[in-house]
Parts: sequence; C-alpha cells; structure tokens
Amino acid sequence: MLLNTQFVETPLTYNGQQLQAHWIYKTWGIKGNALVAFIGPADVALESMVDQEDVLKKAPIYSPKMVHFIGEWFIDSLNEGILLQHLFTSELYESLWEAGVTGLSKRGNDIYHQGRKASVSIATRSGVSVLMHTAVNVETEGTPIPTSGLSQMGVEPVAFAKALLERFRCQSEVWASARVKVSPRL
Amino acid sequence: MLLNTQFVETPLTYNGQQLQAHWIYKTWGIKGNALVAFIGPADVALESMVDQEDVLKKAPIYSPKMVHFIGEWFIDSLNEGILLQHLFTSELYESLWEAGVTGLSKRGNDIYHQGRKASVSIATRSGVSVLMHTAVNVETEGTPIPTSGLSQMGVEPVAFAKALLERFRCQSEVWASARVKVSPRL
Amino acid sequence: MLLNTQFVETPLTYNGQQLQAHWIYKTWGIKGNALVAFIGPADVALESMVDQEDVLKKAPIYSPKMVHFIGEWFIDSLNEGILLQHLFTSELYESLWEAGVTGLSKRGNDIYHQGRKASVSIATRSGVSVLMHTAVNVETEGTPIPTSGLSQMGVEPVAFAKALLERFRCQSEVWASARVKVSPRL
Amino acid sequence: MLLNTQFVETPLTYNGQQLQAHWIYKTWGIKGNALVAFIGPADVALESMVDQEDVLKKAPIYSPKMVHFIGEWFIDSLNEGILLQHLFTSELYESLWEAGVTGLSKRGNDIYHQGRKASVSIATRSGVSVLMHTAVNVETEGTPIPTSGLSQMGVEPVAFAKALLERFRCQSEVWASARVKVSPRL
Amino acid sequence: MLLNTQFVETPLTYNGQQLQAHWIYKTWGIKGNALVAFIGPADVALESMVDQEDVLKKAPIYSPKMVHFIGEWFIDSLNEGILLQHLFTSELYESLWEAGVTGLSKRGNDIYHQGRKASVSIATRSGVSVLMHTAVNVETEGTPIPTSGLSQMGVEPVAFAKALLERFRCQSEVWASARVKVSPRL
Amino acid sequence: MLLNTQFVETPLTYNGQQLQAHWIYKTWGIKGNALVAFIGPADVALESMVDQEDVLKKAPIYSPKMVHFIGEWFIDSLNEGILLQHLFTSELYESLWEAGVTGLSKRGNDIYHQGRKASVSIATRSGVSVLMHTAVNVETEGTPIPTSGLSQMGVEPVAFAKALLERFRCQSEVWASARVKVSPRL
Repeated sequence: MLLNTQFVETPLTYNGQQLQAHWIYKTWGIKGNALVAFIGPADVALESMVDQEDVLKKAPIYSPKMVHFIGEWFIDSLNEGILLQHLFTSELYESLWEAGVTGLSKRGNDIYHQGRKASVSIATRSGVSVLMHTAVNVETEGTPIPTSGLSQMGVEPVAFAKALLERFRCQSEVWASARVKVSPRL
Repeated sequence: MLLNTQFVETPLTYNGQQLQAHWIYKTWGIKGNALVAFIGPADVALESMVDQEDVLKKAPIYSPKMVHFIGEWFIDSLNEGILLQHLFTSELYESLWEAGVTGLSKRGNDIYHQGRKASVSIATRSGVSVLMHTAVNVETEGTPIPTSGLSQMGVEPVAFAKALLERFRCQSEVWASARVKVSPRL
Repeated sequence: MLLNTQFVETPLTYNGQQLQAHWIYKTWGIKGNALVAFIGPADVALESMVDQEDVLKKAPIYSPKMVHFIGEWFIDSLNEGILLQHLFTSELYESLWEAGVTGLSKRGNDIYHQGRKASVSIATRSGVSVLMHTAVNVETEGTPIPTSGLSQMGVEPVAFAKALLERFRCQSEVWASARVKVSPRL
Repeated sequence: MLLNTQFVETPLTYNGQQLQAHWIYKTWGIKGNALVAFIGPADVALESMVDQEDVLKKAPIYSPKMVHFIGEWFIDSLNEGILLQHLFTSELYESLWEAGVTGLSKRGNDIYHQGRKASVSIATRSGVSVLMHTAVNVETEGTPIPTSGLSQMGVEPVAFAKALLERFRCQSEVWASARVKVSPRL
Repeated sequence: MLLNTQFVETPLTYNGQQLQAHWIYKTWGIKGNALVAFIGPADVALESMVDQEDVLKKAPIYSPKMVHFIGEWFIDSLNEGILLQHLFTSELYESLWEAGVTGLSKRGNDIYHQGRKASVSIATRSGVSVLMHTAVNVETEGTPIPTSGLSQMGVEPVAFAKALLERFRCQSEVWASARVKVSPRL
Repeated sequence: MLLNTQFVETPLTYNGQQLQAHWIYKTWGIKGNALVAFIGPADVALESMVDQEDVLKKAPIYSPKMVHFIGEWFIDSLNEGILLQHLFTSELYESLWEAGVTGLSKRGNDIYHQGRKASVSIATRSGVSVLMHTAVNVETEGTPIPTSGLSQMGVEPVAFAKALLERFRCQSEVWASARVKVSPRL
C-alpha cells in the first residue's frame, strides 16, 4: 500500500477527465499507487460524472477554486477503494479540526463548515485500478448550492494540501504495517 | 455492509478472549456484522495478544476502565478489515473533536490527548470473519505508560459510546451506498 | 446480500440494453442489489448479445412474450455472479414443480417443458457489478426453435413472477445468514 | 471448477469429523475438488458442530440412516462456498421432484416432505478450502424432531445418490462453462 | 487452472488486436483457459499498446518474424495474471537453456541473447479475463533496437513452440495440484 | 509486493516449525513480506509436514545440509502464493543454469541434477499470510532417495543464496511494476 504523493504547482481545472486509469502516470510521470493535489476550478458536466445519484438529480459540479486530490490504487477490490476514499475524507476533516477550524461537521463523505458544504468526493473502478477524486473548496463564488471553503475557514490551501498528502502517505504506511503484525484468531 | 450495534450495560473486563469469531453472537445473540460496546477494565496478558509487535516488546495492555468496542464483519479480506478498523478510529477521534475536546492528536490508529495515549486498537482475522477491538480510556490509574481518558477530557462514556455506535452504523450505510452508485471508468 | 425486488407493471421489450450497470437504478430508482421483473417480448440482435457461444452459432433470441428478470449485484466476483444466476434458475425451476407443472426438466441453466426449451439465462460483469437476465416464455409463437411457456404450463405469469421475486429475496437472506453462523474448520 | 465424485459403498457414521480439510483425499485418495457420498447414521455431538445457531439452541444432529454428501472445493471465498452449498441443495430437491415424489417443499436449505424435515446442510471454510456436508434421511426412527426420508418417499438411496453425484458434476461443468463464454458489459 | 493449448499453423501478424477477451475462442473455437501459439510479424502501433510505459516512450513494437503466444485465463485477479505471465516467461527462458542455447540472460520479463533483446511480454485484464501476449523473435531484420532471435540461437521455432505449449500446460497442472495438497498452518 | 530479504549466517535445522506465520518477524525482526535464507540440515517428521501427498506416502524430508529459503507474503490468496512459490523455484533453477551447471532439469517444482532430486518446495497459508519453504541440497549423504546438491554442481552455497535473494527481490519489483503500467482491454 506504498503511496507516491505530489503537489502539482500548475493550476488545473478538474472536469472529470482526470478520473481515468493512469492519468497521474501519463500526466505527471508518477508510477504506482499515487495521490496528487492541485488547485483550480471544478467544472464537471453531467455526462462526465460517475455518481449516478447526482446524474439522476441533474446536479453537475461547479466551484471557482478547489484543492483537488486525485488518487489511484492498483487494486482489484472496489470495496477496498471505497474505504480508502472515506479514510481520505476523514484525514481531510481531521486536518481541518487540528488546524483550529470550528463549526465543522461531516455527513457520509461530505464535509460541512457552518452548515454549508465544503467538499466533494467520489471513488470508482477502472479496469486495472481504483480511482478517487476528493476536493475541498477554496473560494465559493457561483457554486450552485450554499458552500464554504478554506478561505472562509482561514486555511492556506497550498500548505494544507501538502500537509494532507504527507499525512495520508504516513497513514497508508501504518495501515500496511497493521496488516502484517497481527496473528490470526480462531 | 449492514451493521448491527448494541451498547451492553453490564460491565465486563476485556482480556482478549472477546476477540473471537462469533463472540458477539454467542454472548449477546446478535447475528451478522456487529459492533458492540461495553465498559470495564482492559487486562490482556501477552499470550492473549494478537499484536506481535507488542508481544515482541513485552507490552501487555492494562487500563482500569475503558469503553471497549468489539466489531465483527463476515468478510474474507483482512485488508478490508484493517481499513474498517482505521475508519472506526477516525470516527472515534472526530467524535472527540466534535464534543469540544482540545489537545487531541492521532498517530496511526492511536489517539492522544495532551500528548498522552488515550486509545488502543487492533484488527485481525478469524477463519470466517474480520475482528476488531478498539477502546478508549475512561480512567487511567495504574496504566503502564502515561495515558489520558474520557474523564480527563470531560466526556461522559455511556452517551459517547452510544453516539459513536450510531455514528459508525450510519457511516457504514454511506459506504455501502457509495459502492452501488458509481459507474466505472475506462 | 440484501436484495431489493420489484415487479414492473409496464410491458417492456427486452433487447439486451437492460443488461447494463445501473439500468435498474436509472430506470426504476431502485438502489443497490436488485432484482426486477417485467413482461414483454424478447428481441436481442446478435450484436447485443453477451453469450459468445450464441454469437458464434448466430442464434439471436426472440420470443413474443416472456417474464423477464433483471438482476444486479454490486460484487466484484464473476464466479459468485454465475452461481447466483444458477441459483435463480433453480428457484424458478422449483417454483414450476411446486405449482404442479409436470413434464419439466433442466439442463445446465435451461428449463424444458415437454422437451421444449422454456427459458433463457445469462450472467456477466460490468465494471462495478454482476448482471443477470433470466426469462421464461409466456407465449411462444414465432420462436426460432421449439419452445414451451407458462401458457402451455397453465401458469399465470404475473402472480408467478411476484412469488418468485419474493422467494428469491427470502433465499438471499438465508444465504447471507448461512455465511455468518458457521465456525471455521481446521 | 472440475469436480471429482465418488459413491463410497462402505457404510459410515457421520459425526462431524468428516468435515475437515483433505478428509476426502486422506480417506479415499481423491485429490482436488471432490464430492463423495456414503450411507450411514448421523450422530454429531454439540462440540463437533459448526452451526453456531444449532449450538446455541443445543440441537445436536441425529438420524439412524442418511445419504451423506461431503464436498470440498479448494477456493478461498466462503461466499462462493455458501452458494455452492445451496446449489447442491437445489439439485437434491429437484432430483426428488423429478423422481416423482410429491409433498415436497424447501425453506432456505432445508428440504421438507409432507411438512417433516428431510435434510441437513452446512458449509464452512478450512484454511485451504470450503467444506460442505449435506445429507438426506433414509430412515427416521429416533430423530429428535419430526422427519421424513427417502424410505417414506419411495426412493432407493444408492441409485439416488449416484445419480445426484453425476448430476452435480455435470452442473459444475456448466457453471465453469458459463463463466468463460460471456463478454463483459459497460 | 486447466489450460487448453494449440499451435496454429496459419501465419498471422500480431498487431495488438489479438489481446482481446475471447479472441482465442472466437478465432480458433477453443473455450476456457487457453494458450495458443502462431508465427508471424509483430507490428503494434502505439494506439494499440497496453504498456503505458512504452506508450510514454513512444516505443512501438516491430519484428519481421516472431513466435507469438496468446493466453487467456478466466480469473478476476490481475495480480494472479501478472504472476502467470512471468511464469510463462520463465518456462520460455528455461526451454532455451535446456535446448543448449548459451549467452542467455533475463531482466524482469525480458529475455536477452548475447546482450540483445529476444522477447516481448505483456499481461492485462479484460472485463472477464486476464490476457497475455509473449513472443520471441525468430528473425530480427528491421527491428527498432538490437535484437536476437531463435534463428541466431539455432532453435527451430515450430517444434520449440509446440514443446513450450505442452510444457506450460503440464506446469499449470502442477500448480493446480500444489494448491490442493497442502494443509494450512497457524 | 515489496520484499525484504536477509541471509542468516547462523546455521539452523529446518524441521517444519519455521513455516509459521511471523516466524521471520519473531526470529529475525524483519517485518512485512520477507524472504530469508539460511544453511543447515532438513529434518521434518511426518507430523510436521504440510504436503498431504508426502504424508500419505510416508515420505519424511531429510538432508544433511541444504540452503533453505523461507518466504512470507501478507496476502489473502493461496492461488497467488502458489504462483509465487513456483516463480521462486524458476528463479532458483535459472540461477543454476546461469552459473554454468549442466545436466539440470525441472519437473513441476522439483529441480533435478543428473537425474537426481536436488530441491524441495512447498507453499501454504496461515490465517494472515502465505508461507513458502524451498530448499536446495548442499550435501546429500544419508538422504532417503537419490539426490544431488550444490557440492556436486560446484556451486558455493552462501554466494548462491545471497545472489538468489537479491534476484528474487528485484523480480518482485518488476512484477509489482508490471501490475501498474498496463491499461485494460475490452
């Protein structure tokens, strides 16, 4: 469960095309399990969305500025991928608490600040891997629903993203280590 | 990933024997994936421990009073079980933040309060299931290392345990739901 | 292995497009593992068939009126999906016996009545789920091979379909329960 | 999913010890996935039972004469094993219908004749395989609950067992074949 | 892990289209796990390649004459498929040593003769199976990098291919047999 | 599939007790997937053997001096473990060829030198891992069947073992890398 991480300085719009097998490898040259972060708008048309619930509700994703995290794990189990996605959301949420932000809450994998939605998250499978996109708002002007973001929370996005990448990489090592140290039970 | 939960009013000492396949079913009559909580001492001799790292370090577990959580999921994958364990630790940690406790930190699956260890957690496999024990101190007198607990945090253990059981049950439903709503990617 | 079932009153032609991930959810709003039944013709062109054996034999599927069952289970294992498909065919076959029909036989997953083929069945994988189509003839006029159907058997299709949905839902609960009650062996 | 089958002429008491990894191989020299049948009493003490539900109910198994089927599949998935167990029960049940027996019904994996229980069935895992025991009464004198058997049904046990072994072997080939002929869906 | 093998006498160009689910079945009528060999050029354009490393390096595959091996296993695990691919490469490599060829070496899954590359190999997943293409040069005129082949090694390709098919089929039986004869350990 | 390797200088008798979960970790402090080598006699009584075929044949293992390799991979799939075992045997076999030894042959996972057995190999599962023991004779005095060893081949055992550990570690990285670079096929 070794994980390679990288913060990409170039601003980039997330439009759903980044949630593809080997996008990280083909774009940034990082091979293997990987988690990259970048900053930019989110603008995902209905036809590029994998969340069929949102497609049914006709709820496209828009935000003027988010910190985006794209993860790819080369495993076969979507169940495991879903759990990794939610572990990432938890680490993100906990990082905000530890940064001193108040008025936070979490429902499922959605993070709220002062009752307004601050994040989006999805995980799915490709034919060779499990893919995740999780993002937290920086700015919120023009979002289709009431939202909050790192600006309102007083959190600087670049340092936050870098620290979260490192935190999740360390936690991934802990999970791998937890796997190998336990004896079985009857 | 349906999960049955129950708070057991009877005080009980955790001595490692509770981490067995069907302990929950045979003791409390709850069938299927289950998470139960009870309050009592922790007293685990080296020969009853599954954490081989602690066995090598000769670090038995003792606490005069903890809230214990025993989980059993009838799945084949230990990897998935390890991730569920860490999701539970995250929900526990977040519950403390949301309760207004300060001075919290987390390293791997260990929760600290004011720099002192507040929790223990382990997950392993039986031949038919994945098993978890996670516990947070209530009192800390006589523990072998510096520890903190819910008393020091000002958190009432029974209400805390009941709320956490319900929170984790709801999150389990969210994860199950996340599994079924996404279309695949190429 | 919880299963949601529904009998759809609207007549519908099965043309192979119904064997798609989330077709049940997007068409009928049923989320999760699901089994739906409807009545209508079967008309599957070669290019919409998943059975490569039939494609090689150039054997398209046609029937003027069938009871169709579409199942989707959000699991990763095609082996498990194939076994679920055959369990469904068995329950269908047994329902006919219990209804007093005579002259029945079964070869693989094909049900025969008085030596004439009465059913079709296939299971495959999408990127996120296992999919099944099983159908039993009601009328048989114009079928490319000698067939029999519920009309010839004297079985009323709507009541039959509803009872079979409920029967399979109950059996699914039994299988889930069988998984969680057994202790392992050496 | 190749399956080796054998009818063992020697009478044998089933006492639970037969449900062990490699019992078939070590006793009858049959290597690999295997299904063997033999005739004899069933006498399983509580401490040899794997069904924890029956253990809790203190319901040991006794029958003066049954046709026993022991199956072992060298697969890792208990879910798949449970489904194979229920497919076997279905084939057994259908064989009785096809033999002309009337008054049959099935609940879960239990077969009833004229409202009286005629069979037992369990599946579990060893460390290297999935194991099944399914048996149908021949005689019923002295059973702890009202039961029926092949004698009451007018079915000759040896021929019945041999035909069922062959039937299940053929069906196993069909399932293996179903796995390899389907193209995937999106 | 039963494997059907066949040497196809007709010369054929490998252009990447042969690495598709059911190509063996639809082209040669061989159903199930299969390994076929044929002789002909390799000419794979970048857009038909599955190796993203080679795509990034813009390294298309060309050889005037190779012995090609296409394998398809109907399993769900890509990890297992990758290991099967490397076992095949090992058997190929060992066959050359046993044939008396000298100056051989192996790096990863690439075989070298007198320091020049003699083989290519790739494995991937379809939605229902794991697919492999492995090939060894016969002639080497016009290859984009320094290569060697069976001609330079003095190995007759048809007999070599037939013997390797049979060798791998036998080894597959040994692996299946190794799976079923071992008792588990604590 | 990261692998930690170590050559243990202390001579040690292999008696079957080394094939246990966490034996490497508890004895040599190496955590995670690991492969260790040591030199010493092999003396495995029937009751400590996992190969049920040898147990049936009453064929205990004895050799006065072997190079032993014990591997442990923390994976759930025994199938994958069996393939890793055979990949190790292949690398061992190829190392001998590359060292200039002649008169070698391989049947299944047994290596022969001048028609005499030179190696033993077994893989099985614990509740948390897959375990392997593979060993090649150094001396052969007193073995129950005709054998050959590294002495007869003119191969120095310590350097051979160290090179093979490193070779297999490198190959493990190649397999991990092969898993992550391929795009899926339809």
